[in-house]
Amino acid sequence: MSEPVLDPSSSQCQRLDTLESEIKSLQEQLELRKTQYEAERKARAKVERQLQRTLQHELQTSQGIFVQPIGHLDSCFPNVVGTPRQGALAPSTRAKIVFAANVSPHTFEGLEDFSHVWITFLFHLNTNIKANKDRPGATAVTYSAKITPPMLQHKVGIFATRSPHRPNPVGFTLARLQRICAQTKTLYVSGVDLVQGTPILDIKPYVPYYDCVPEDQLQVASWISTTIGTRREVTMPEHVREQLKELMPHQKFYRDDFVQMCQAIIETLAVDVKSQRQKQYAERNANCCVQVLDQVVVEYTCRTPSEGGPANVLITRVHLYVPNTLQPLDGMPE
Amino acid sequence: MSEPVLDPSSSQCQRLDTLESEIKSLQEQLELRKTQYEAERKARAKVERQLQRTLQHELQTSQGIFVQPIGHLDSCFPNVVGTPRQGALAPSTRAKIVFAANVSPHTFEGLEDFSHVWITFLFHLNTNIKANKDRPGATAVTYSAKITPPMLQHKVGIFATRSPHRPNPVGFTLARLQRICAQTKTLYVSGVDLVQGTPILDIKPYVPYYDCVPEDQLQVASWISTTIGTRREVTMPEHVREQLKELMPHQKFYRDDFVQMCQAIIETLAVDVKSQRQKQYAERNANCCVQVLDQVVVEYTCRTPSEGGPANVLITRVHLYVPNTLQPLDGMPE
Repeated sequence: MSEPVLDPSSSQCQRLDTLESEIKSLQEQLELRKTQYEAERKARAKVERQLQRTLQHELQTSQGIFVQPIGHLDSCFPNVVGTPRQGALAPSTRAKIVFAANVSPHTFEGLEDFSHVWITFLFHLNTNIKANKDRPGATAVTYSAKITPPMLQHKVGIFATRSPHRPNPVGFTLARLQRICAQTKTLYVSGVDLVQGTPILDIKPYVPYYDCVPEDQLQVASWISTTIGTRREVTMPEHVREQLKELMPHQKFYRDDFVQMCQAIIETLAVDVKSQRQKQYAERNANCCVQVLDQVVVEYTCRTPSEGGPANVLITRVHLYVPNTLQPLDGMPE
Repeated sequence: MSEPVLDPSSSQCQRLDTLESEIKSLQEQLELRKTQYEAERKARAKVERQLQRTLQHELQTSQGIFVQPIGHLDSCFPNVVGTPRQGALAPSTRAKIVFAANVSPHTFEGLEDFSHVWITFLFHLNTNIKANKDRPGATAVTYSAKITPPMLQHKVGIFATRSPHRPNPVGFTLARLQRICAQTKTLYVSGVDLVQGTPILDIKPYVPYYDCVPEDQLQVASWISTTIGTRREVTMPEHVREQLKELMPHQKFYRDDFVQMCQAIIETLAVDVKSQRQKQYAERNANCCVQVLDQVVVEYTCRTPSEGGPANVLITRVHLYVPNTLQPLDGMPE
């Protein structure tokens, strides 16, 4: 049976046209919604897988743990270069630990009975962490199996050194506890080897009965024991002392203590040990080295006497430290 | 103009009906797809927000860091209860650190020149971590601002103690390095206060010049300095020594060293300090206390002499340790 021929102007005919075009439109809309739905479903599944990976696999939360700073350290050392490699080597250095808002002031009660504390911290400026920072969710930290310590001429295993470039960037250091301000949640410490902004994970009291080995049971590698007393002779001429005096009002840690400030500069320069690359860099810069301490830039030259032995350090000039203005000298390779 | 009346049987009429019902069906489908699409979109956005929070906010990856064990410790202490609170207090205790497959044997080179190492580890059995384990993605670690140390009768701030329940469950402890086996990536250590399975984050050499404070500069809270020498008198009767001898072939850490095994048991019981709750628990159990060391269960009683002073410990029996069979005594509150 053939389709009856309709009068194109008839209302039925118009109605059918309308309905058919409506169907076409609905089908198109449905197709679009289907596509959108599928896209959303795919995206949701993808993000969920990523979340699972982040929580379980990449971060391996079942095996490791996420550590978060409970405060940050405000240090007299704004830069990594020149920060003493051990706090005990420069006892006049100063810093304060400012705890986060969620740390209770009660946590410090009784701490005033101890002269020294262990500070557990993150090596946050390690270049092996930096590389990973750019990759969100990245967790694998690269480290070298062997490194050359500044006091040794050849490589040793990372576990035989105190290098900051460790498998896990968690360190601990001993410092003298100077003062506790529970109200501002601030610990004032001295004898520090930590750079400005170091994230703090924990504080615990130093107890010699637990933390010290009796000398008759002790053995230390000779490359440490034979070099531990090595100090460079540091000369701070009178004109430099005069320059430094004028800068005292600008200081954060030593404003009212000129003698301690001189002492901290001398101690720091006396024990600073540069790597081979850092030495070459200084030589390329007319042997002008730079050390920043508190708000002062200390310029000095460094010469090894012809008869050998530790180098002589001569401070040539001090001037006010303005952050981010020292690139050429300050950006020296570590 | 009124709608023309159609013959219900006409083909146009049927066509319109079909189209209208098709429209209705399409509209319903579209409505459904819309709902599904909206649901997926919502779900996707929710998961994405969760992922963002996980990566940035909850975990604060910009501020903290994920640490992963590089190995695990195999200890003569299978349980937390009875593990010495400091390694130096029980020098005959033994353990070995077995490093992960991805740790290079070169990392240990030069470590043999040191007698002692710092072991950085995770407090993996802390109950404050356990609580968080059950909540995937949970990262906030709860800790008390103040705790009562076993040697003190009142609470002090967490930072004035060496309690394992710290803001970040990262600890470090000093141990004697006995032997290095680079081939199996194993370090044999003694004088340990770590429980079986402790995840290891790092090893670094102990250097007294950095890690020890000269005595004239030192201050320690009196609740530590006055109790540090306190030891309980431990008696191991002859019949117990005979029992122990028979168990020697089953030992992992002391198989060939009966004298050291006796010594480790005595040292451990001499310094074990129970909390108030643990004491009450022991009393409810006819004053029978239990200490597991290596593969041996040591049963003992503990009495404070009427004239005061440290308690006397009498070892009553030793028998072979079978894991997970000690619930009633072993599950004692910590």
